Amino acid sequence: MKTPIDTAIVAKAIDESKVHNVQRASIREVVRLVNTIEKLSGTKFVRMEMGVPGINAEKVGVEAEIESLKRGVASIYPDIEGIKELKDEASRFIKLFLDINISPSGIVPTVGSMQGGFCAFLMCARRDVNKTTTLFIDPGFPVQKQQHKVLGIPVEQFDVYNYRGEKLAEKLESYLKTGKIASIVYSNPNNPSWICFTDDELKTIGTLAKKYDVIVIEDLAYFGMDFRQDYSVPGQAPFQPTVAKYTDNYMLMISSSKIFSYAGQRIGILAISDTLYHRTFPDLKRYFTSDSFGFAAIYGALYALSSGTCHSAQFALAAMFKAVNDGAANLTASVKEYEKRASLMKELFVKYGFNIVYDTDLGRPLANGFYFTISYPGYTGGELVEELLPYGISAITLDITGSERKEGLRACVSQVRMEQIPVLEERLKIFYENHK
Amino acid sequence: MKTPIDTAIVAKAIDESKVHNVQRASIREVVRLVNTIEKLSGTKFVRMEMGVPGINAEKVGVEAEIESLKRGVASIYPDIEGIKELKDEASRFIKLFLDINISPSGIVPTVGSMQGGFCAFLMCARRDVNKTTTLFIDPGFPVQKQQHKVLGIPVEQFDVYNYRGEKLAEKLESYLKTGKIASIVYSNPNNPSWICFTDDELKTIGTLAKKYDVIVIEDLAYFGMDFRQDYSVPGQAPFQPTVAKYTDNYMLMISSSKIFSYAGQRIGILAISDTLYHRTFPDLKRYFTSDSFGFAAIYGALYALSSGTCHSAQFALAAMFKAVNDGAANLTASVKEYEKRASLMKELFVKYGFNIVYDTDLGRPLANGFYFTISYPGYTGGELVEELLPYGISAITLDITGSERKEGLRACVSQVRMEQIPVLEERLKIFYENHK
Repeated sequence: MKTPIDTAIVAKAIDESKVHNVQRASIREVVRLVNTIEKLSGTKFVRMEMGVPGINAEKVGVEAEIESLKRGVASIYPDIEGIKELKDEASRFIKLFLDINISPSGIVPTVGSMQGGFCAFLMCARRDVNKTTTLFIDPGFPVQKQQHKVLGIPVEQFDVYNYRGEKLAEKLESYLKTGKIASIVYSNPNNPSWICFTDDELKTIGTLAKKYDVIVIEDLAYFGMDFRQDYSVPGQAPFQPTVAKYTDNYMLMISSSKIFSYAGQRIGILAISDTLYHRTFPDLKRYFTSDSFGFAAIYGALYALSSGTCHSAQFALAAMFKAVNDGAANLTASVKEYEKRASLMKELFVKYGFNIVYDTDLGRPLANGFYFTISYPGYTGGELVEELLPYGISAITLDITGSERKEGLRACVSQVRMEQIPVLEERLKIFYENHK
Repeated sequence: MKTPIDTAIVAKAIDESKVHNVQRASIREVVRLVNTIEKLSGTKFVRMEMGVPGINAEKVGVEAEIESLKRGVASIYPDIEGIKELKDEASRFIKLFLDINISPSGIVPTVGSMQGGFCAFLMCARRDVNKTTTLFIDPGFPVQKQQHKVLGIPVEQFDVYNYRGEKLAEKLESYLKTGKIASIVYSNPNNPSWICFTDDELKTIGTLAKKYDVIVIEDLAYFGMDFRQDYSVPGQAPFQPTVAKYTDNYMLMISSSKIFSYAGQRIGILAISDTLYHRTFPDLKRYFTSDSFGFAAIYGALYALSSGTCHSAQFALAAMFKAVNDGAANLTASVKEYEKRASLMKELFVKYGFNIVYDTDLGRPLANGFYFTISYPGYTGGELVEELLPYGISAITLDITGSERKEGLRACVSQVRMEQIPVLEERLKIFYENHK
């Protein structure tokens, strides 16, 4: 059976890259393995395994960053609270695109949402001696579970696949009523599945969070990228959906990595609701000098993690927020490129016998965006990752994301150029022929 | 009694800035208070409270950083291990200026030594279920104790003032023999006192660390700044002293903040000794998927903290290391500016009745560098901070640094320009007249 890449070469690459268990490989191991196969075979993959930007960093950000370096910011420690321009423009952004009011004082730059999450998780799990555990609405971003392991914070999780819509409340409540849950974490749009919660679902989460005094940590890494609506007009509905409409007890993580393609510079913002910022929790004194949540989060936790975020990158992010706030740039114009690719790619996979695993939001077809999920009849996710290698196609399993869909893979569109779409079709055609 | 600034204005500023307990004010509170006095009085202070760079960022770094941004690195996640150029040049730097061999694989960029320390502390305190506690050789950097509180890691500490030279071994051993000590932490040259450990003292630390299998975490933030020797010639003795000569079990923190005045960009490197990198500790499996120290430190801990350091800043640091490695730039040429200022300032303080608190390294006068320590007869440190305010002079207490010298203040030279030296003299003269 002929394959685009000789299976012998794939076997050799597996050996050379030391990825002995392909079916259980981590993202980084898949990257390493595919690099090796490409090197040995001379054939470029259709690479769908890495969730990294596939377009250039926003120009207005790069220019502002360069200007700030010329002005000499490299020798000056940024204010711990973040530079004023960034706090102010982020607050405007949240108002104009989420229709939510958060004071600049509660908005701080973080070294990516990776650091934002680390800080949020530890603050939430430390403010009440009984509320020790983070609840993940999966599927999710595996590294966040790793962060919990490093911090020694217990985790609960469930795959929302079977609990959409009206089923969500009861499932959530089954955890919350134990009294142990400190926070609820999810991304929306979702990495890896690209599901988007409906407003009703967000209302459910928010209402229950209020009822049980649980803090919601909402990861908006793919802000505005549910392209089924146009969220890009500042100050005008529709606005990016958010749980902040339904509870006062929340923290939002907004990363520059995907919306502005600024992943390399490691910068995002963590926005603490005004209410939460000013709440006091006596149990915080076990770890911090202050019992005020906002004060402890910024001057206690975040400061201890790195004393601030790269000074010049803060100017970049302030400028990028300002540009979309002012209407000088459109929030989704660049990233809509992903929608186009996803639409074409999904069509091809389905044409050649694959299924979309997470396929609807309560009956409504999923948006086309940064990720989509696929499976092939008769194969587990791990088997499918391995089976696709000789076809020069790579992806990761949903298994590692907390999804129960063991047959599923996460496909990322960002590294796939339009010129590769015909190549993808060719390879899928052969796959189909060999597997029907 | 006339003072350069009216005491009524100082009182008003204390009220307005809400720093109600001046004598116990943190560094940031002193900063805020002095900003307010300056605003209300229109008089500029001689500001010695902030440990921030007082010279421009190294040009070769800024230029490399700008170039990398133009090349598009802002949209590309840096390798978790750090970019190759930085790892390689840092390894060369360590060889050429410390005369120590550390493989690039064990050298990773961190978001300042703040993050480097955070990572180091947590790794050391997690590798052995019995070794739970960090031992600080104080005086030290207060934020590191705050990091321990946030992490929930216990701390022991002692002020080395009375334990220099031959007294050090017994004091150290009294802690190490409990078997609870995971790591020993100190900075050398020291913040705040500017003492420099002799080679014998480093040998003592290293030998005991070996004996009790304790990891030494050496903070080299002021690398090469003991200006009593010239450490700036690559590959030629004398080399910056280091405990790495005396033990295999260490981690070095080298920040760009002071040696290259690159504080704003938040970048340093953490260098794990080759030996330690490859050691395995079964107890690490409680928190990490790997029991290999180096692997867990980089892919487990550091990755979970922020997924890497700002991409462009890595190119900056690589370029700055390369310049001094190649001999194209001199490591201490710019920062020797601090020596000049310290020398003049110390002379003036002593002339007008002040004492230098930490004044010798075993009989040898301290170097003149970034910090020095002062006291005035009859005043505690807190009282002296407050007393100096109407004289337009600011500093912080040694108390918060773990020093036992309650009468002492830390004076930083970086924000004091040469033109202010006569102003300082004038004010010290009045202080002396009013206090003799």
